[in-house]
Amino acid sequence: MSSKQPVAIVFDTFGSVVDWRSSLIAELTVFGAARGVSADWTALVDAWRAAYHPSMDRVRKGEQPWTTLDTLHRASLDQLVAEFGIKGLSEADLVHINLGWHRLKPWADSVAGLTRLKSRFIIGPLSNGNVALLLNMAKNAGIPWDMIFGSDLFQHFKPDPETYLGVATMLNVAPGQVMMAAAHNNDLARARKYGLMTAFFPRPQEYGPHQKRDYAADQDWDVVATDIEDMASKLGV
Amino acid sequence: MSSKQPVAIVFDTFGSVVDWRSSLIAELTVFGAARGVSADWTALVDAWRAAYHPSMDRVRKGEQPWTTLDTLHRASLDQLVAEFGIKGLSEADLVHINLGWHRLKPWADSVAGLTRLKSRFIIGPLSNGNVALLLNMAKNAGIPWDMIFGSDLFQHFKPDPETYLGVATMLNVAPGQVMMAAAHNNDLARARKYGLMTAFFPRPQEYGPHQKRDYAADQDWDVVATDIEDMASKLGV
Repeated sequence: MSSKQPVAIVFDTFGSVVDWRSSLIAELTVFGAARGVSADWTALVDAWRAAYHPSMDRVRKGEQPWTTLDTLHRASLDQLVAEFGIKGLSEADLVHINLGWHRLKPWADSVAGLTRLKSRFIIGPLSNGNVALLLNMAKNAGIPWDMIFGSDLFQHFKPDPETYLGVATMLNVAPGQVMMAAAHNNDLARARKYGLMTAFFPRPQEYGPHQKRDYAADQDWDVVATDIEDMASKLGV
Repeated sequence: MSSKQPVAIVFDTFGSVVDWRSSLIAELTVFGAARGVSADWTALVDAWRAAYHPSMDRVRKGEQPWTTLDTLHRASLDQLVAEFGIKGLSEADLVHINLGWHRLKPWADSVAGLTRLKSRFIIGPLSNGNVALLLNMAKNAGIPWDMIFGSDLFQHFKPDPETYLGVATMLNVAPGQVMMAAAHNNDLARARKYGLMTAFFPRPQEYGPHQKRDYAADQDWDVVATDIEDMASKLGV
């Protein structure tokens, strides 16, 4: 059990709490079959996620005004549907597919681990998702967040400091009283740079066969756990 | 049961969900006795609350930059402690007393009613309190909010339209898909003006012997209930 304890723990969401890749592939496969629309849905999902960082970087660099992740996702989807030559999707279908990010499924340990952590700490997502996306996801999946720290609250995407430090300001605590928890070492490195505590747990299946990193902690994070249930145990709850 | 249903229900908090007056009087009476500080705590609490609207109005009118309710509460407290001639309170005591707003107790039906409503609707406070205040209150009292719509998210106090409409924007729904619930007719009148649905339930003990209004609905609000449990029943949950 770690001796120093945070007041609040904020979680990276896509990949760390929910399994975006398997969730979207499963949903699109069923949806495509039901609609009679054939496509390489697995490749589409991987390409969609690959468009994620470049799309946010255009906002982060000021090339584009503040835009929610829902809107960025939709623009990337439209482009990929054209590139993949997928035919037969209506506007309602595209809206539905885009909202697939609101219906992502948690990893097996996520809800149980977060429920334990909630008994002692303030818990919330600190995600590049917007509030509507993260809140609908929580309602669908039964994720018991106390507060939703969507990127639209800060009008900044991670790893901009306004996100990590914005949580501390909003909670009226010091950055060192907030713990960032993630399956991504680079997210934790930024959080540590801005004075937050850190917790790592790996999600080696996040990218399926394309996983290239984050199999293990690459710094001495304050907590290193096998998953969110183990993280709760290591924090003594 | 109302036929048209909202996506989200947001609640006024002070007076509508929690009993600020009895909570603060009880806490200060015990605290004063333990510290050996004597004062007319009931009169102090009533005067503290009376300073609430004027203090926010200075921000709303632009006479003062954005200031959280925690900070406004503290400034009013300092002034009243001096006016009442209360002696013997340390800085730590004043911090503790000011955080009494984070420890307010819910009315008897609040948690049960909100828990029922949460099973079908997104629920959150839409309050002049800041996120830290409302979140600590929820953790202390077991209030199961999905999201905390603190006034600091909008940098506006009610009844500014940025608050009511800000919820709809953040949830990516139309104003008419959001229901404002409150024990205060004037809050609902503003919400209705900006296109929100409305729900009223009275809290006739909110101001104790000083209650002057809000014993009953003064418009045909979409839902009129006796309390939050009854509101859940009227919405069919």
